[in-house]
Amino acid sequence: MTAQELSGVFCEELIRQELDDTTALFPIPEQIRSFYKMYRPSPLVRAYCLEEKLQTPAKIYYKFEGNNTSGSHKLNSAIAQAYYAKMQGLKGVTTETGAGQWGTALSMACAYLGLDCKVYMVKVSYEQKPFRREVMRTYCASVTPSPSMETAVGRKILAEHPGTTGSLGCAISEAVEVATSTPGYRYVLGSVLNQVLLHQSVIGLEAKAALDKYGIQADVIIGCAGGGSNLGGLIAPFMGQKLRGEADYRIIAVEPSSCPSFTRGKYAYDFCDTGMVCPLAKMYTLGSGFIPAPNHAGGLRYHGMSSTLSQLYHDGLMEAVSVKQTDVFQAAEYFARVEGILPAPESAHAIKVAMDEAIRCRETGEAKTIVFGLTGTGYFDMVAYEKFHDGKMQDYTPSDAELQASLERLPNVNG
Amino acid sequence: MTAQELSGVFCEELIRQELDDTTALFPIPEQIRSFYKMYRPSPLVRAYCLEEKLQTPAKIYYKFEGNNTSGSHKLNSAIAQAYYAKMQGLKGVTTETGAGQWGTALSMACAYLGLDCKVYMVKVSYEQKPFRREVMRTYCASVTPSPSMETAVGRKILAEHPGTTGSLGCAISEAVEVATSTPGYRYVLGSVLNQVLLHQSVIGLEAKAALDKYGIQADVIIGCAGGGSNLGGLIAPFMGQKLRGEADYRIIAVEPSSCPSFTRGKYAYDFCDTGMVCPLAKMYTLGSGFIPAPNHAGGLRYHGMSSTLSQLYHDGLMEAVSVKQTDVFQAAEYFARVEGILPAPESAHAIKVAMDEAIRCRETGEAKTIVFGLTGTGYFDMVAYEKFHDGKMQDYTPSDAELQASLERLPNVNG
Repeated sequence: MTAQELSGVFCEELIRQELDDTTALFPIPEQIRSFYKMYRPSPLVRAYCLEEKLQTPAKIYYKFEGNNTSGSHKLNSAIAQAYYAKMQGLKGVTTETGAGQWGTALSMACAYLGLDCKVYMVKVSYEQKPFRREVMRTYCASVTPSPSMETAVGRKILAEHPGTTGSLGCAISEAVEVATSTPGYRYVLGSVLNQVLLHQSVIGLEAKAALDKYGIQADVIIGCAGGGSNLGGLIAPFMGQKLRGEADYRIIAVEPSSCPSFTRGKYAYDFCDTGMVCPLAKMYTLGSGFIPAPNHAGGLRYHGMSSTLSQLYHDGLMEAVSVKQTDVFQAAEYFARVEGILPAPESAHAIKVAMDEAIRCRETGEAKTIVFGLTGTGYFDMVAYEKFHDGKMQDYTPSDAELQASLERLPNVNG
Repeated sequence: MTAQELSGVFCEELIRQELDDTTALFPIPEQIRSFYKMYRPSPLVRAYCLEEKLQTPAKIYYKFEGNNTSGSHKLNSAIAQAYYAKMQGLKGVTTETGAGQWGTALSMACAYLGLDCKVYMVKVSYEQKPFRREVMRTYCASVTPSPSMETAVGRKILAEHPGTTGSLGCAISEAVEVATSTPGYRYVLGSVLNQVLLHQSVIGLEAKAALDKYGIQADVIIGCAGGGSNLGGLIAPFMGQKLRGEADYRIIAVEPSSCPSFTRGKYAYDFCDTGMVCPLAKMYTLGSGFIPAPNHAGGLRYHGMSSTLSQLYHDGLMEAVSVKQTDVFQAAEYFARVEGILPAPESAHAIKVAMDEAIRCRETGEAKTIVFGLTGTGYFDMVAYEKFHDGKMQDYTPSDAELQASLERLPNVNG
């Protein structure tokens, strides 16, 4: 794709960032820095209580991104994207949201800058998570359950599937249609893209500055991976060192066993969206038609993966593991009780693997330094916690046959 | 009441703190300090964006207590009370909760110390706020909708009023009954008491340390007041200076017009609970039989007020204002959009008056320094925000006749 081809959908500066593969560092504009002051730097916390409880010689640190109203790291990119839209003189932006973290973050950023924000929220989430919707409304966003009668694609889907509760793929299609057909509007996306990883690199830059300040050398860096923006942001400066041969780190991506793009997917060209309207990207994918099981970590239910992270994984520079949902919630509950913070289900994937590593250190006696990304809080995920408490939570793992069938439908450019 | 008389209900050390009127400073035990490290010091934030938006010469600071999973300042006292219970060798504690902030905070503290926690949650809240309940369960607490069949008083109430949705007064009675009849258990309370104000003074001590560090002199200090623990804690060191003639401050308590204990109540001896089983306290009260209208700031729906604050107000050392619910939510929404934080309805009472003061400064040209307490976040209050967005929120102000009728039923010790 060329910048020209993308300019109807995305903001100009964001396209420049997306396609630029030579510039190593982009300055953060003053107004974005000013916004960051409201909640950044985010704390890098030594998990003393967790270490003591696990009786591990390991030192555990987490970079906590939940101390802002959007409840996650998503705000880091939302403010950047909204800022560039505003600078271009646009009137507003459109987006889709599933679980609601991205929609909330974008609403906050747009309210701050005085930009219109139209969010298409998957209908089932809109109905099941009315509180998320109200937070977005508090931040001036218009929130429409998708599919809706507002768009041609929405009307078409509703005619074909009356009573459907929607999907992320459909919400993306509606948001893109409105952005491209309304003067002064563009579409923004909360993960996967290079530009989003770039914005999220503030997480890693801060984490590294804090570690350097205290002369701490990380051994293992762990993050959950859905579209990859949090993990990509966290590891950015560390991976830079690793690529330049200045330091070595084990870097581990954690994904749900229900949506195992890294561990069981294929490195191939695929559509980024279910509706197959977006450009192809080379990435680890389960196939754009793969429908992940209803895992409660909505932010990790994505068939593909950031191209950047995919390349790094393909080149053997990072590892990946998949974990079961019930194990994740057990770790989440354990962590909440000893460290006080109630983690989002997505974040708890990283907690689970960090705890596993720390327990391994107890067995081997190694005093490794483990750093993991705690991307957000779980205040809006209590339905999932309730299921876990009541013993009603299931684990999901797609069968080989199911994955095979999905991967057979990859676009034929892969030959 | 003597320490002996109180010892069946409260922990020994807490009774000592409650009745001690000579010791100025109590050391904070090491284990409590260690717990505080997880979320303290809480930030004292300069509200640059709010100042700019209001075009005021005033400097506005807020002490933000919402950056912990309980979502409010309640955790400061919860950990102290749980700690002293643990030190006494108790097995567990009981309490009541309405909106759920106190119950959540106590659950977190008990989970950390390995203490049983039994929470009686007003039935209507238990049913309407299932997420609050699940957070408490995540932190190991047993949560019982009140009135319940577990206690004699609960069974009596259910027999007399089948189908009742409960009240705070009833939940207190159940919690006290269980504490006094179960070996190894005591009852704990989240506000009103001297001991709770003492624990909450960490808010004010930190705020003063931060202001002193930057050589900032506050002119006005503002806090919301329900039972008074947050305001009492915030103003503690400043009021000390004021009493010793070292500095002068305007100190303003903000209460809802629906429950105006300071501004329309009587300074008299009254019961602390609706069930009239607790000792009498001299305080500003609307009468223990006063049922506040269903204002959404559940934490401010209390008929009485901390005795300490009542004395200070009676002596003319602080002011009080009452504000309407819809004005409070308008301020809350405005604040959220410019400062990013979604405030709890209780906290928004202080925001409303801080904004009013800042706007007055714009008119007079005075560059006053305003400090207010932002006690917590509103993630579990989105039903209230929704009503506000939909224009369905009402204001409540009790009539003179209603207040008069309630105050006529004060215990006759007042002569």
